Amino acid sequence: MSSFHTATANDLASGLRSGALSTEAYAKSLLEVAEKRESEVHAWAYLNADVVLSQARVLDQIPVHKRGPLHGLPIGIKDVLLTQDMPTRFNSPIFSNSPTIPLDATTVKVLRAAGALIFGKTHTTQFASTTTGGPCANPHNTAHTPGGSSSGSAAAVADLHVPLAIGTQTGGSIVRPASFCGIWGLKPTWGTASTEGMSRYSTTCDTVGYFARCIDDIDLIASVYTQRPFPSPQLHEPMPRTARVAMLKTHVWTKAGPGLKSAWEAARSLLVEQGYRPVDLELPAEFARMTEWHSNLMAHESRAMFLGHAMTDRDQLDKVILNIFDRGATLTPERIRETYDSVARLRPVWDEIAQGYDLIITPSTTDSAPEGLGWTGDACFNAMWSALHVPTVNVPGLKGTGGLPLGLTVVGPRWSDEHVLRGGATLDQVLRKGRAA
Amino acid sequence: MSSFHTATANDLASGLRSGALSTEAYAKSLLEVAEKRESEVHAWAYLNADVVLSQARVLDQIPVHKRGPLHGLPIGIKDVLLTQDMPTRFNSPIFSNSPTIPLDATTVKVLRAAGALIFGKTHTTQFASTTTGGPCANPHNTAHTPGGSSSGSAAAVADLHVPLAIGTQTGGSIVRPASFCGIWGLKPTWGTASTEGMSRYSTTCDTVGYFARCIDDIDLIASVYTQRPFPSPQLHEPMPRTARVAMLKTHVWTKAGPGLKSAWEAARSLLVEQGYRPVDLELPAEFARMTEWHSNLMAHESRAMFLGHAMTDRDQLDKVILNIFDRGATLTPERIRETYDSVARLRPVWDEIAQGYDLIITPSTTDSAPEGLGWTGDACFNAMWSALHVPTVNVPGLKGTGGLPLGLTVVGPRWSDEHVLRGGATLDQVLRKGRAA
Repeated sequence: MSSFHTATANDLASGLRSGALSTEAYAKSLLEVAEKRESEVHAWAYLNADVVLSQARVLDQIPVHKRGPLHGLPIGIKDVLLTQDMPTRFNSPIFSNSPTIPLDATTVKVLRAAGALIFGKTHTTQFASTTTGGPCANPHNTAHTPGGSSSGSAAAVADLHVPLAIGTQTGGSIVRPASFCGIWGLKPTWGTASTEGMSRYSTTCDTVGYFARCIDDIDLIASVYTQRPFPSPQLHEPMPRTARVAMLKTHVWTKAGPGLKSAWEAARSLLVEQGYRPVDLELPAEFARMTEWHSNLMAHESRAMFLGHAMTDRDQLDKVILNIFDRGATLTPERIRETYDSVARLRPVWDEIAQGYDLIITPSTTDSAPEGLGWTGDACFNAMWSALHVPTVNVPGLKGTGGLPLGLTVVGPRWSDEHVLRGGATLDQVLRKGRAA
Repeated sequence: MSSFHTATANDLASGLRSGALSTEAYAKSLLEVAEKRESEVHAWAYLNADVVLSQARVLDQIPVHKRGPLHGLPIGIKDVLLTQDMPTRFNSPIFSNSPTIPLDATTVKVLRAAGALIFGKTHTTQFASTTTGGPCANPHNTAHTPGGSSSGSAAAVADLHVPLAIGTQTGGSIVRPASFCGIWGLKPTWGTASTEGMSRYSTTCDTVGYFARCIDDIDLIASVYTQRPFPSPQLHEPMPRTARVAMLKTHVWTKAGPGLKSAWEAARSLLVEQGYRPVDLELPAEFARMTEWHSNLMAHESRAMFLGHAMTDRDQLDKVILNIFDRGATLTPERIRETYDSVARLRPVWDEIAQGYDLIITPSTTDSAPEGLGWTGDACFNAMWSALHVPTVNVPGLKGTGGLPLGLTVVGPRWSDEHVLRGGATLDQVLRKGRAA
C-alpha cells in the first residue's frame, strides 16, 4: 500500500478495473501523501477528503464490466475548470467566496465518464492568465517556482499526490511547469479537448492538456479525449537511427540560460553517441515574429474575455491581466488582421517543415525553475507552439541550473500527437541510456 | 404605458437612465405582453416575473449617476448562456431538471454591468446545434418556424416582449431567424463577445450576437461589447449615390426560393431608382467550397464539444447532433488540415474583395420562413460568413413567399462592424423609401 503514490496510472489501471485494487484504499493512500506534503508544496486550491472518498466508494460499486479506461484513477483539475462537486476559484479574489457551481467542464465530464476520480482543484495563476506565482512551490526545491500557470497540476503529479492532472496552456502553461517539475506534460493539438466550462483568455491559443510521470500515462489520458485505441501502437518502438532528427533552437535562443545550453549539448551528444544524426533546424525569418503575434492575440482576445470582470471588478484583476487587457484596446483592426492572418499562414508552413523530420527537439524553458515563488518563469519557448496549434510534449530527464529538473520539448505538425509521443518516448530512451551510462 | 412594448430601447434609454421612467413599470408592461402572447409564440424557455421584477426594483434604486448605457433595458438571453438567477437548459433532456447555475456567462455579465435587466431565457434548438425546431413559433404566422437556432430571441423581439435579445450563430442562427421574424440581427466579427459560459459547438464558428427592432438598438448593444462610443458617428449618414454597391448571390443562389428571387430584384430596382449603381459581385470559384469546409469544421469541432454528453447520454442527444458528431470521427487529419487552412486563407481574400466595395448585399435566407415548426430552415446563405468571421447584419423590410418577412444581409470585411451597420442603415432607408412610394 505504501507504494501506491509512486505507482503510475498504468501500474494500477488494470487492478482498479478488475477490482483487485479498491479505489477507496488507493485514494486514502494518496490523500495521506497529499495532506503530509501540502504545507510545503501548496499544490491544492481545494482538496476535500470526504468528496474524494465518497467518489471512490461510488466507483468501487460500479460493476467490473462497466468500468471505463480511467476507472479509479485520481486526477487533479486545474482550478479554472468547473467541477460540479468542488468550488472553482480561478485564484481570483472575485471568486474567493463563490459556491460550488453544479456543472462539470466538458473536459471534466469526459474524465468522469471514463471512470476517473476527480481528486481536487490545483493551484493556478489568476485566471491562468498571469505569471504572478504563489502559493504553490516546486517539489524539487520549495524555494523555487513550479512554473505556471498550471502550477498545482504539475506540482501535485511531481510530488506523488496524484498520477495524473489536467492543465491548460495559452502561452507556456503546461510545458513550462512540466519542465520545471521534471514530469511529462502534453499540450495536444489545439481543439482536442473542449474548453467549455473553463475560464477563457485567448480563444485562439487556450488548450487543455495533461500531466503525468510517465509517457504511458500521457498516452492513456490522451487516448480518452480522442477516443483512439490505447496504447498507441508504435509508442515504444524507438525511432531508427536513420530517423531524421532535428534540433530547433528557435528565434528566442538568446534567452537560453546556462543550464539549458549545457543540457542542449548533452542531449545532442547522447543522440550522436546512440547513433542518431541530429541536424540543426532553422526556421524562416518570419517565425521570429511569432512572439509579437502571440502577444497581440493575447491582448486582442483578452478584451472580450475579461470585459465583464473589467467592468465590475477592475481593481480586483491582477495587474498583468489589466496591462494585457488595456493594450488590447490600442490594437488597430489592421494590426489584428495582420496578426490572425500571419499566424494562420504560418501554421501550414510549419506543418510542411515539420513533415520533413521524424523527431524535432526544441527547448521547453530557458533553464530550470527560477528561485522565488513570485514569478512563474518565461514562456518564450512555448508561446509560438500555442499559437501554431501544434502538439508539444515536455520530456523530462535533464538537469538545469542548480541541479533542478529541465525538460526538452518534442514538437510536430498539427494532428500528429501520437507521432510526437513516439518521438518523446525515443528521446526519453536516449536520455535514460545516457543517465545509465 | 401601453406603448412601452412597441418602443425601442433607444426610445426609452434616456428616460430609464434619468429616472423619468421606472424600470419596474416598464418591466411589468412587457411581462403583460409576454404572458399574453406566450401561449401562441412560445418564445421563452424560462420566464419568471418575480426574478424580472426583483431585478427591476434593484435597478430602480441605483443612483442616476451610476447608471450604465443599458440601464433598465430588458434583454432576452438564448438558453445556451448561463444566467446566475435562472436555469439554463440548452433545450436538452439532459438538463431538463437542472438547477440554476450560480454563474453568468461573460456575455451576460457584461449586460448586467451595463445596467441591463435580464428578462428570461429564450428557446433554442438543442445546444444551438440542430435545425430541429419547436416549440417556438413565428410571431407573423404561428404555423411557420421563427428560424433557429436563436428561435426565441428573434421571436421575443419581433413579438414585442423585449426590445433586445442575445443569440448565437455557428451556421446561420442569428441572421436566419432575424430574416424570418422581420427584425435586425447582427452577427459581429468573430470574437467580439466572449463565448465563456455558453455551450459550445464549433470554436471556429460560434459567435454571440444581438437582435433588435431597429438599427439604433443594435448599435447600442454592439457599442457595449466593444466599449466604443455610441451612437456610431456615421450610422445615419446614408452612403452617397457614388458608393460602390455590390449584390452578391454567392454559390448557393441555386437554393433561392421564389420569394427571395423577387425580393432580390425588388431591392435592386429600389437601389437603382434611388440613384445607386449596384453591380453583381462574383467570388472566386474556391469560395464555393466554403459550404463543405464549414460542414467539416462543425463535424470535427463537435467531437471535443459533445464528447462528454456522447459518453454519458448518447441516446439523449438529438440525431442531428449525433450525425455530425459521428461524421467528425471519419475526417482524416489531411482533410481537417485542408479545411482549417483553406478557410484561414480565404479570410484575407474575402477582406480584400470586400474592401473594394462600400456596401455589399447578399441573401439572408432562401425565402421567408417555411411552414411548420419542425424544421428551422436552411442556413446555406449564412454558413460561409460564420466561418469567415465577418460581420453580417440582417436588414428587415422585404416580403417573401406568403407575404412573410424576408431580410437581406449586409456583409463586410472582418472588424468593419460599424461600417456594416452604416451599410445596413443605408439599405434600410432605400427599402423604406420604396415602401413609402
